[in-house]
Amino acid sequence: MFGTTYPIIQAPMAGGTTTPALVAAVSNAGALGSLGAAYMTPAQIRDTVAEIRRLTDRPFAVNLFAGGHDSPHDVDPTAMLAILARHHEALGLQRPTMPAWPADRFPEQFEAVLEARPAIFSFTFGLPAEAIRRARDAGIRTVGTATTVDEAQRLEAAGIDAVVAQGSEAGGHRGTFAGPFENAMIGTMALVPQVVDAVSVPVIASGGIMDGRGIVAARALGAAAVQMGTAFLGCDEAGVAEAHRTALEAGHEDAATVTRAFSGRPARGLVNDFMRDVHAAEKAGPVTLPFAVHGALTGPMRRQASRVGDIERMSLWSGQGVRMFRRMPAAELVRRLVEESATVAAGLG
Amino acid sequence: MFGTTYPIIQAPMAGGTTTPALVAAVSNAGALGSLGAAYMTPAQIRDTVAEIRRLTDRPFAVNLFAGGHDSPHDVDPTAMLAILARHHEALGLQRPTMPAWPADRFPEQFEAVLEARPAIFSFTFGLPAEAIRRARDAGIRTVGTATTVDEAQRLEAAGIDAVVAQGSEAGGHRGTFAGPFENAMIGTMALVPQVVDAVSVPVIASGGIMDGRGIVAARALGAAAVQMGTAFLGCDEAGVAEAHRTALEAGHEDAATVTRAFSGRPARGLVNDFMRDVHAAEKAGPVTLPFAVHGALTGPMRRQASRVGDIERMSLWSGQGVRMFRRMPAAELVRRLVEESATVAAGLG
Repeated sequence: MFGTTYPIIQAPMAGGTTTPALVAAVSNAGALGSLGAAYMTPAQIRDTVAEIRRLTDRPFAVNLFAGGHDSPHDVDPTAMLAILARHHEALGLQRPTMPAWPADRFPEQFEAVLEARPAIFSFTFGLPAEAIRRARDAGIRTVGTATTVDEAQRLEAAGIDAVVAQGSEAGGHRGTFAGPFENAMIGTMALVPQVVDAVSVPVIASGGIMDGRGIVAARALGAAAVQMGTAFLGCDEAGVAEAHRTALEAGHEDAATVTRAFSGRPARGLVNDFMRDVHAAEKAGPVTLPFAVHGALTGPMRRQASRVGDIERMSLWSGQGVRMFRRMPAAELVRRLVEESATVAAGLG
Repeated sequence: MFGTTYPIIQAPMAGGTTTPALVAAVSNAGALGSLGAAYMTPAQIRDTVAEIRRLTDRPFAVNLFAGGHDSPHDVDPTAMLAILARHHEALGLQRPTMPAWPADRFPEQFEAVLEARPAIFSFTFGLPAEAIRRARDAGIRTVGTATTVDEAQRLEAAGIDAVVAQGSEAGGHRGTFAGPFENAMIGTMALVPQVVDAVSVPVIASGGIMDGRGIVAARALGAAAVQMGTAFLGCDEAGVAEAHRTALEAGHEDAATVTRAFSGRPARGLVNDFMRDVHAAEKAGPVTLPFAVHGALTGPMRRQASRVGDIERMSLWSGQGVRMFRRMPAAELVRRLVEESATVAAGLG
């Protein structure tokens, strides 16, 4: 699939996690590396893709957020600013202020991806029909993210080459783009076979897959490949705060909670003080802002917390399989996943 | 495992679903039938077990609710009575009234199970340490239900023979007994391997498993057996309202919602008008009553709705794998599950 040796995809995690070193090491090991480029400028996309190409001649994917960016409108940030003020103080930062509403970067980012011509363009949060068509015309394979059968069918109708079926176990952002996310928390065990039955394109299983057991289970359910995020956070090459990795090593499955606290969109991570404060305030009504602006509001706190290793104020993205987290170089992880899969499959024969 | 030919357990669904004909047909086909006896009197348990024994000499399980029964205390049923009044009217029933607080039946039910001596005593909602000990002393194998790694470890410490790892996909009641249920919505793909790694007793996977693909996936994750509920609702022998089966045939994964509306405890079923009314009211605060009394309050509505086939007012328990639902006799379902599993496993070799 996609010209890789193994049907294993390193998930595109945005925000600096998927360094060129990680993407290239994964692809060089025979799996598919993915650059999470959602927070990058067009120039950064161009430069980072060039850097990956210096490190590997194998296929890799570039991923963008394709949807969910609200246009500027009046919001009331009072509650969020009050919560943030306490956490800014704990970090020694100045009082938070409401940022300017960021523009939707997808159109210009997508042009940069088209020019960079990665083997695969993958995306989440939406169904960019025009971008799918243009990528295909340029010889770039397209992969979209679905959290329900309906979303998978919509992606197929738009001409997608493969669908990621993102189960509720997955860490990081929920990819839901049609309907309320609460209805789209379908476990991988149930989601994958139902998507496989409903579409004719290859299905990539994601959510809760951490080792060879999960890979073989996904194949049994009919998936053509797996996509793994949390597992690749343990790779030396990943751009992850050391404190985040230490938290994952101590993490439990029932602490990996879905929250809007950090970005305004539902995403799964290990619960911490900032999440608890936002969730407590949410009991009285919504407090987070639209995704388009919320991330800019919490950015100073998240960046400073990552710099100083304060796990109570950074986003500790994690899937529910966190007890299976382990640290090693990317090439070693891919090698072990392949070996484990062969052993598990042989035991089922 | 447990003396059955196949590592497949028909889940114990209480409330008349697991008829003697179903339990016996499943056990006679080489899987393990389970009687959901949680709503039965001791005499009913005795008589029903005797009836099952007339139909099979194979092992079967008897299941009880072992925990979560609050003692009588003041509650305010105003909001629930107002919601119920509308649905009673739609069914032509008299206005609802607050029932007497039912006693905890577990102690006397358990004595009846001990006397009936099924091969297996399984339970959910708790950790009845004394009952586990007495069952083992009587030569009855014990199976408890866990929704987190912590719960599985507690069951093992109490001397359990096997643990059901109930993933978030599962239909019907959540078995959570330690900690808030919201934290214990772990998908089967993530829950099973983490429980397997944490305990040394056999692990039974449940949640989202509907056909041979799910069975082989569960085995790949390290499960010794699977437990399936929704799949067995399609058996001719199951005591299920015809309207419920028709709803399952038309059901979608994103409509199988967790609700407290019917019993006061979180349980997964297809969304309908009654659930929507309760959920709308819950936006202003909790409206359901403790499990011990809530089921008695909604009982007249549920029973009348089942009698007349009104799917908007009955509990349409369903897991998230509902699009894979199919109708056939129990012996045929077990035969197909075994054949499908062999085919899927062979394809992975």
